[in-house]
Amino acid sequence: MLPLEGIKVLDLTRVLTGPFCTMILADMGAEVIKVEIPGEGDESRGYTPFLQDESGYFMSINRDKKGITLNLKTEEGKEIFKKLVKWADVITENYKPGTMKKLGLDYEALKEIKPDIIYAATSGFGQTGPYSDRPAYDAVVQGMGGIVSITGPKGSKGVRVGSSIADITAALYTVIGILSALHVKDKTGEGQFIDISMLDCQVSILENAIARYLYTGQVPKPQGNKHPSICPFESFECSDGKEVMIAIGNDNLWAKFCRLVGRDELINDQRFATNRVRLENYEDLKPIMDDIMKQKSLDEWLKTLEKNAIPCGPINTIDKVVKDPQVLYREMLIELEHPKVGKITVPGVPIKFSKTPAKVRFAAPTLGQHNEEVFTSLGYTSEQIEEFKNKGVI
Amino acid sequence: MLPLEGIKVLDLTRVLTGPFCTMILADMGAEVIKVEIPGEGDESRGYTPFLQDESGYFMSINRDKKGITLNLKTEEGKEIFKKLVKWADVITENYKPGTMKKLGLDYEALKEIKPDIIYAATSGFGQTGPYSDRPAYDAVVQGMGGIVSITGPKGSKGVRVGSSIADITAALYTVIGILSALHVKDKTGEGQFIDISMLDCQVSILENAIARYLYTGQVPKPQGNKHPSICPFESFECSDGKEVMIAIGNDNLWAKFCRLVGRDELINDQRFATNRVRLENYEDLKPIMDDIMKQKSLDEWLKTLEKNAIPCGPINTIDKVVKDPQVLYREMLIELEHPKVGKITVPGVPIKFSKTPAKVRFAAPTLGQHNEEVFTSLGYTSEQIEEFKNKGVI
Repeated sequence: MLPLEGIKVLDLTRVLTGPFCTMILADMGAEVIKVEIPGEGDESRGYTPFLQDESGYFMSINRDKKGITLNLKTEEGKEIFKKLVKWADVITENYKPGTMKKLGLDYEALKEIKPDIIYAATSGFGQTGPYSDRPAYDAVVQGMGGIVSITGPKGSKGVRVGSSIADITAALYTVIGILSALHVKDKTGEGQFIDISMLDCQVSILENAIARYLYTGQVPKPQGNKHPSICPFESFECSDGKEVMIAIGNDNLWAKFCRLVGRDELINDQRFATNRVRLENYEDLKPIMDDIMKQKSLDEWLKTLEKNAIPCGPINTIDKVVKDPQVLYREMLIELEHPKVGKITVPGVPIKFSKTPAKVRFAAPTLGQHNEEVFTSLGYTSEQIEEFKNKGVI
Repeated sequence: MLPLEGIKVLDLTRVLTGPFCTMILADMGAEVIKVEIPGEGDESRGYTPFLQDESGYFMSINRDKKGITLNLKTEEGKEIFKKLVKWADVITENYKPGTMKKLGLDYEALKEIKPDIIYAATSGFGQTGPYSDRPAYDAVVQGMGGIVSITGPKGSKGVRVGSSIADITAALYTVIGILSALHVKDKTGEGQFIDISMLDCQVSILENAIARYLYTGQVPKPQGNKHPSICPFESFECSDGKEVMIAIGNDNLWAKFCRLVGRDELINDQRFATNRVRLENYEDLKPIMDDIMKQKSLDEWLKTLEKNAIPCGPINTIDKVVKDPQVLYREMLIELEHPKVGKITVPGVPIKFSKTPAKVRFAAPTLGQHNEEVFTSLGYTSEQIEEFKNKGVI
């Protein structure tokens, strides 16, 4: 049994945040039907990298979903869609707020058809508030939400996180919203509307930066690899010029580290005795740490520190990540057979259940791949399906 | 009604990833009892910034939880803990794998006491595999998981994301695991063990970087504010020297943008007609975009672009984020009364439910604040509680 077996999701989402959310639901066994615009499809089908003209971007986040095409601007398209609403437990969309209302397919309209439907809308700024009707993509929300201003080399103006963290965070929160709403529905029989704003999600992950500004009045800035609240907690150059990340998260670890490197006198040095004073005396500590860390190569440090249970690691590029023994052991890279391009590799599922393991089962659909199967199951004949195709409904 | 009302969580987690997970559960109405080491407490109580000697770091992620102290190395501590296990639906911990087994309190032992318990363990590298017994903090996992190698200015070696994204991503996945396991339990009556590895979670959020390396053989590198798959999708300098983030995520938006800036000839320019060719001809496009964007100030661009529904925004520092009208409208900053320090501000909840809204209700506990209440509810007398205190059990 898969954890979400039996849950049915009607998925109108495109690009990244919505598809990432429904990928997680699908990997955990929900039946997801992804609806795309006939002829055009999800715009991420046009995003690099490509493998034989199929987008690797699209394929990596749409596995485990069935794909149909449907033109929601036509009357017949709306009619077919409403049949699917009756089938579904959950509807997901990440259109700009107002789009579904214009189509006559917003939550208010759809709950008339299916009163206990759970309707999850993920958008740049949410369904309410002054920015509600603005469009957004990841970079815009990363910029507005503050994370860019605290990421980057010291002294810089900040830089975008290299993965689309604004989309992905909102995706994860949307999954949490949907699963919580399913829990409520199990208890009360009632569905509801879930409104996720990517900007809200960015604010929620700023971590200590908000408290730092509100309590100290200092505007947090990029700090390179250094942590603003914990010390020493950053990367250092080793004797071979490579960098080692080291994270001394508490005073016991600090004492252990000092003893290991033969610098016992630092443990009770009043400048460095607690995390709080180590941070205050960072300018004194940094050159001492630099000297210590330059005494061994990266490999020597990893061996020594690991043996002594001091948190540390290399800074891996992607080629190293995909060959990492732990990553491979944990099945975080999965091979799938794609109907057009053959074997592809996609990331695995990071939630490991002992009794009901999640599983990546099949590759992302080509455009309209499951039209026949899905429309037939709704009761349409081959002739009707052919006619829908000719009229551009599907 | 709150979405997770009635769910009981026994929370052994410390620092960030576990506490962030149980904060989300608590904000949604779960009853969370946080267990800390007597005298010492969660090590993040020592993390800056401080407000009257209370850690703002700790307070911002431990609201809505009750706090007790318990020494799990003593026999009496274990006995009390086992009573709490019987009370709980969910147990959470983020110790290094093996720690709970050494205490005789691992999943195998606890399910003897409570067969349907859901036990969620979040760790740096997971409960299995060659790195399983290594300790980790956020920076180490960010470094090993690849995100550092793709974040940073172009040409740089990469930089840590300024917020603890490895902790937070694992926290969100752990919440998803717990809610899915609760769903399974509702259907089958069975509990289970959930094993979350921060490193696995980092691999899962690398987005197009893995496909890029596997399909093209190119190792992804830091690209500054530029997106590797979409173009133009980055920040540009305006006439007043400020930066505007602009995200042209599809070809329709590109045509709209070209018309808006009076450069209709670019729409059908064969170098720029589709996202795919715009990326290939980035070196040609960049100076053209730079010239266009230097013609107006940031404020002028925001007005013009927003009016024309082209995704854009400023790059906000934290002082601007906390005053942003949309952030305030969406109640993403909440004022709480803390028992020691008075009024504090913490981030709100980014999941907006129409029928069962989540709610930040009360401030983080001081160390052992709810000892009396919780231990009394387990049937202990005031005398026993006093004795536990004197013996260092609580």
